[in-house]
Amino acid sequence: MADYVYGPGRTHLFVPGPVNIPDPVIRAMSRNNEDYRSPAIPALTKTLLEDVKQIFKTTTGTPFMFPTTGTGAWESALTNTLSPGDRIVSFSLGQFSLLWIDQQQRLGFSVDVIESDWGYGADLAALETRLRGDSGHTIKAVCIVHNETATGVTNDLHAVRKLLDAYRHPALLLVDGVSSICALDFRMDEWGVDVALTGSQKALSLPTGLGIVCASPKALEAAKTAKSVRVFFDWKDYLKFYKMGTYWPYTPSIQLLYGLRAGLDLIFEEGLENVIKRHARLGAATRLAVEAWGLKNCTQKEENFSDTVTAVVVPAYIDSSEIVKHAWKRYNLSLGLGLNKVAGKVFRIGHLGNLNDLQLLGCLSGVEMVLKDIGYPVKLGSGVAAAAAYLSNSTPLIPSRI
Amino acid sequence: MADYVYGPGRTHLFVPGPVNIPDPVIRAMSRNNEDYRSPAIPALTKTLLEDVKQIFKTTTGTPFMFPTTGTGAWESALTNTLSPGDRIVSFSLGQFSLLWIDQQQRLGFSVDVIESDWGYGADLAALETRLRGDSGHTIKAVCIVHNETATGVTNDLHAVRKLLDAYRHPALLLVDGVSSICALDFRMDEWGVDVALTGSQKALSLPTGLGIVCASPKALEAAKTAKSVRVFFDWKDYLKFYKMGTYWPYTPSIQLLYGLRAGLDLIFEEGLENVIKRHARLGAATRLAVEAWGLKNCTQKEENFSDTVTAVVVPAYIDSSEIVKHAWKRYNLSLGLGLNKVAGKVFRIGHLGNLNDLQLLGCLSGVEMVLKDIGYPVKLGSGVAAAAAYLSNSTPLIPSRI
Amino acid sequence: MADYVYGPGRTHLFVPGPVNIPDPVIRAMSRNNEDYRSPAIPALTKTLLEDVKQIFKTTTGTPFMFPTTGTGAWESALTNTLSPGDRIVSFSLGQFSLLWIDQQQRLGFSVDVIESDWGYGADLAALETRLRGDSGHTIKAVCIVHNETATGVTNDLHAVRKLLDAYRHPALLLVDGVSSICALDFRMDEWGVDVALTGSQKALSLPTGLGIVCASPKALEAAKTAKSVRVFFDWKDYLKFYKMGTYWPYTPSIQLLYGLRAGLDLIFEEGLENVIKRHARLGAATRLAVEAWGLKNCTQKEENFSDTVTAVVVPAYIDSSEIVKHAWKRYNLSLGLGLNKVAGKVFRIGHLGNLNDLQLLGCLSGVEMVLKDIGYPVKLGSGVAAAAAYLSNSTPLIPSRI
Amino acid sequence: MADYVYGPGRTHLFVPGPVNIPDPVIRAMSRNNEDYRSPAIPALTKTLLEDVKQIFKTTTGTPFMFPTTGTGAWESALTNTLSPGDRIVSFSLGQFSLLWIDQQQRLGFSVDVIESDWGYGADLAALETRLRGDSGHTIKAVCIVHNETATGVTNDLHAVRKLLDAYRHPALLLVDGVSSICALDFRMDEWGVDVALTGSQKALSLPTGLGIVCASPKALEAAKTAKSVRVFFDWKDYLKFYKMGTYWPYTPSIQLLYGLRAGLDLIFEEGLENVIKRHARLGAATRLAVEAWGLKNCTQKEENFSDTVTAVVVPAYIDSSEIVKHAWKRYNLSLGLGLNKVAGKVFRIGHLGNLNDLQLLGCLSGVEMVLKDIGYPVKLGSGVAAAAAYLSNSTPLIPSRI
Repeated sequence: MADYVYGPGRTHLFVPGPVNIPDPVIRAMSRNNEDYRSPAIPALTKTLLEDVKQIFKTTTGTPFMFPTTGTGAWESALTNTLSPGDRIVSFSLGQFSLLWIDQQQRLGFSVDVIESDWGYGADLAALETRLRGDSGHTIKAVCIVHNETATGVTNDLHAVRKLLDAYRHPALLLVDGVSSICALDFRMDEWGVDVALTGSQKALSLPTGLGIVCASPKALEAAKTAKSVRVFFDWKDYLKFYKMGTYWPYTPSIQLLYGLRAGLDLIFEEGLENVIKRHARLGAATRLAVEAWGLKNCTQKEENFSDTVTAVVVPAYIDSSEIVKHAWKRYNLSLGLGLNKVAGKVFRIGHLGNLNDLQLLGCLSGVEMVLKDIGYPVKLGSGVAAAAAYLSNSTPLIPSRI
Repeated sequence: MADYVYGPGRTHLFVPGPVNIPDPVIRAMSRNNEDYRSPAIPALTKTLLEDVKQIFKTTTGTPFMFPTTGTGAWESALTNTLSPGDRIVSFSLGQFSLLWIDQQQRLGFSVDVIESDWGYGADLAALETRLRGDSGHTIKAVCIVHNETATGVTNDLHAVRKLLDAYRHPALLLVDGVSSICALDFRMDEWGVDVALTGSQKALSLPTGLGIVCASPKALEAAKTAKSVRVFFDWKDYLKFYKMGTYWPYTPSIQLLYGLRAGLDLIFEEGLENVIKRHARLGAATRLAVEAWGLKNCTQKEENFSDTVTAVVVPAYIDSSEIVKHAWKRYNLSLGLGLNKVAGKVFRIGHLGNLNDLQLLGCLSGVEMVLKDIGYPVKLGSGVAAAAAYLSNSTPLIPSRI
Repeated sequence: MADYVYGPGRTHLFVPGPVNIPDPVIRAMSRNNEDYRSPAIPALTKTLLEDVKQIFKTTTGTPFMFPTTGTGAWESALTNTLSPGDRIVSFSLGQFSLLWIDQQQRLGFSVDVIESDWGYGADLAALETRLRGDSGHTIKAVCIVHNETATGVTNDLHAVRKLLDAYRHPALLLVDGVSSICALDFRMDEWGVDVALTGSQKALSLPTGLGIVCASPKALEAAKTAKSVRVFFDWKDYLKFYKMGTYWPYTPSIQLLYGLRAGLDLIFEEGLENVIKRHARLGAATRLAVEAWGLKNCTQKEENFSDTVTAVVVPAYIDSSEIVKHAWKRYNLSLGLGLNKVAGKVFRIGHLGNLNDLQLLGCLSGVEMVLKDIGYPVKLGSGVAAAAAYLSNSTPLIPSRI
Repeated sequence: MADYVYGPGRTHLFVPGPVNIPDPVIRAMSRNNEDYRSPAIPALTKTLLEDVKQIFKTTTGTPFMFPTTGTGAWESALTNTLSPGDRIVSFSLGQFSLLWIDQQQRLGFSVDVIESDWGYGADLAALETRLRGDSGHTIKAVCIVHNETATGVTNDLHAVRKLLDAYRHPALLLVDGVSSICALDFRMDEWGVDVALTGSQKALSLPTGLGIVCASPKALEAAKTAKSVRVFFDWKDYLKFYKMGTYWPYTPSIQLLYGLRAGLDLIFEEGLENVIKRHARLGAATRLAVEAWGLKNCTQKEENFSDTVTAVVVPAYIDSSEIVKHAWKRYNLSLGLGLNKVAGKVFRIGHLGNLNDLQLLGCLSGVEMVLKDIGYPVKLGSGVAAAAAYLSNSTPLIPSRI
């Protein structure tokens, strides 16, 4: 069963999540269950809760590691801080921000949606207009996706914070960092983010299964009065078990805890700043390849270029889903589909997580061959050459091998 | 880190969940992530959704495999079928039924709690009284834990169904099968269960991470009008993706899907009925050991004896948590603590999941040594002898080795 | 395929090799190949060669880790130190000493065999007679199996050394430590052993694949003039690569190197002396169980009792191979067969390697059930009780959990 | 320890052995030991011995799976078929043929060495001269390396057989197929090869540890009278255990047996002919890249081009070992060093085993960057383009995904 789509050699996984898991993490997770009430698991959990704060760049935040996905983490962020009917401002700029907005509406909030065309960043001018007009502080929260995975657009969170500060607005700042945290520059404390969240299968390079939510002191305070119905996703239960030192209101995945430990160890060994720089390098290299192929980036402005995912626009005569299908069928290469408004129009290259130069160059050479196969007049080697020229000037020696 | 509580040899895991994972399942899960939008994962998921129905003994039910725990599965069962304020009848008879009731109340239902003393089964006479008096059908659901893991009490679901039928009562029957399904005799269709649920880390012998919920056609119908707020746990989103043939509204754990495939294969190879018989044998053997030690079963009536967990009452002069602690510290044996009302008074032996005679006998010999160490006048070998006498008359040859 | 003899639960592996591998070692070995000429593998090898000396208790010895089995290690010990026609004294006392003698003869040595009845130790009086009569030093080597795995007989190596010293005899002392080293008290330097050897699948608790041979300075000196033909097993090639710092004349198993690293780490964490004491405890407990069952130990004298394997003599009306077959078919328990002269007459319980009390007690309870099934009038629980009584007085707390 | 040379992302392993292990094989090997005398292991072994013959393309040969490396397999081939002093003809054309000749000499044979310059194939004209002059049949065996891994030279075995036949010469034909069998076209029966051998860590894509030797009926006959001393490598012991149906004269690696099973299953799923074609494609692509870089192949004649390894000659002003070192230090890329006569002059790209297009293209892009870094005026992308152009015209769709 497991191999009924077997092809020789490795699968080249370049969707923007779930991403490649490093071998030491796969090894760390290859284990039997354990009693999560023995002293071992709380001791392990304690180190994780402490260390995971580093990837959010927070010292004052409180992390929660829910056995869930990013969608569940969204729900936890919203229901713990807001009450039904609360007005929230939310940016729509791609499939994942759309889905979050859909959730916000279904959870009963009054969502003030600020639309951007897909490929553009969050419309901060529109936010400013809202804030300026909200002297009564009816806006309870601003919700923003740091990196829209569907279009490869990174938003400027610092600018959002500065706007809120400029208007001395007390709205909570809730951030989806699913395809950014641990890969892009993200600073929870410095940027005054109130709730930030990510999923284990993204830049943390683990299997799906942990939705990690980090709450500022202000968010924790808001949770005390938030009236949204919640049980599974309730922070209160976690805080109670944190106090008792047993940490878990219900059964965690033992394997994911050990996996997270191994994953964090690798990230800290490389250095979080180096991890972020590596993503910047791989992102830049990818964009140079796209340019060399004569294709357009779905992202319209350079300031929004994403270092974790690149959405590539194909000519109108090509169906991008054929590219994705063909890549998988012929080259064992997994690319991301275009979603919703950009279905058929873009394909996506995920370049986040535990990845290096030659993996990316292998992927880019695969994209070139697929483009050729599918009838696009690409010059084979052109994208790889552009990317390699950049990387060969910027990639450092592996520190442990010097 | 992983081994900072290292002791030589295997850990003997006898908590009533999470339970031992068979090696073929650990192997099947030791893998990289994959694109869950490639054709491989939907094809795999399709087989799982079909096959998982067998362990619920349903042909008409619709299963949902949520990336969550049993607590999340509870929430999914309730919020998809009920509306805030709905009257539900719920049985309180141990820590896990209590926690479910707490959830029911927090989710805004009007919970009519039927209490039993811990160690006793659900009070069906009290249910009958409610049903008799409810000609107006104000009761929208009856919620019952099939097997209360805290006290080792198995309830008679068939009797509940017969009562509902006798009074032609349309209330939904919602069943927590977390420590029963795939281990005890459970028949969703035959017993008219409307929602049944379990967690992957119990009798399925997987890591934590899948909350499997199965809905009858009547439950699916109720979901169309249920007004409880839900997004992550909403069946509607799943049904939409089922229809599209892509199956997942958000990212599943690739590893757990392959693990479930391997786990189901093992269960079907052994035969579900044989799995249930094996649990019956191991349960009976455990109770004989307890009797031989001169200790009492927390379960008061034979009809409620659980074949997945035995809660053993210790004499008043012993703190049962010392037994658990000592077992772990000296013999690398994980036993279950007494919870809440029975904290310090009982310890629990989990005998569910992928387990065989000699593993159980090793555990029982460990319990004997712990009892002796802790000052209880046990005759070493007495429980093992009683259990072995029973097993040696009832254990079949391994079919694949005849 | 892998599971076509599938039985539920764990396999209880109690043959005297290959033995149970600890999970951290299985994890460490679950990896891709690596270039063994990169700097990583020599660096790893260096630590292994240094650390492996500790399990031989030598500071002056030179270890060689051949990609082979114990049989290959034997061949390496002999061909590197001796020349065709050399007279050697060798003790015959069981199947494995027999096989070694067969090899010695086929390699062209003149083997002076000292026979013992099976179940008895090496006849040192006979050795003394030889030494006394050999003032011309025609005996070039004394070959002895430290622990005869077929009969569970441990020989007194220190006494052999004292005899050689008493007669100032320069013969080399070659020791098969396959089922002793890292489990029994073995002291290469103190006892003047010239070549000692073991296999990875024994007390080191790894897969088969490393034949570890350790040579004293005197043995290395002898290797310079030994005329036996050898290439694959030649120490000279290794020494050449040791000097170059690349260590390997041909490709090693990357996985076994990482596995050995993990295995040694576990042994050092427990403490080699504690490992040896644990074997002493488990050996004593096993013998008490055998006694309680009313059965005889194949080992005739207490001084030769083996703490790694117990050969149990069955009554004449029972075929011991039926016990082994039945244990596997009904209880998923692997016991050792009687070999050659004791085929059908003994079965063997291996209690070496990474093992703890409850694993052994599970095995002993299994043996009891098998004995009963097969028609031997055993009192169920009797052996377990005797073993547990001993263990509960001698087993220490797990240090990492105090 | 395991990660003290940690670099982010995957290691790109392109040495000509040990090679990349497919994930299903790593999974199959991630397991505890088992009793190799239980019925399971002989049953498994039986299938392996039967199926492994297919990769040798023999129906009449008898395979032996020694727990050893290629060096040990060489020794087994020679000692089982020849007697000390026997005259053998052996071709010297690179480091590995040299090492085999060294072994032949040390084992006491009279080796008639036919030298070729490194980079050239075996001198068959010189062989013909020998055969013509040997009407007395003093030549007992012709030894030839099918694919010389040091220079990337593939020899024409069929031509050797035709020469032997032309002169009706009864010499045995012994073939080192270490870097050819299961990757290049090799036909034991059709080409009248008497002993062929390979190692598990080469095209079979397993860890090191199995030296697989296959003997023709004529070779088995020769073994009956061959006088070379042998025990560990003696076929006789294996044949004895084959007859008994227990198969193993000493302990095999359980893990490698399950790994070989999984590996063969993958090879048969792909189809052996498709595996060979895949190697041909990847070999051709690599050579096109080398040409595009303006570098020379160490192999002088097209007829000798190797589809498993390409030795690339660097300009005199570059030390090829710097290329290998730099590739590992900066790009996590493992390339093969130049050995002996070509040390510093060539580096080697291994393209054998379980590998696909994009892995190779990633490697080639890495080589380009290294060449640039090291000061060679390469045009980035040139080699990748040439290779991709070829591959995109020749790579088939993955059959399981059509």
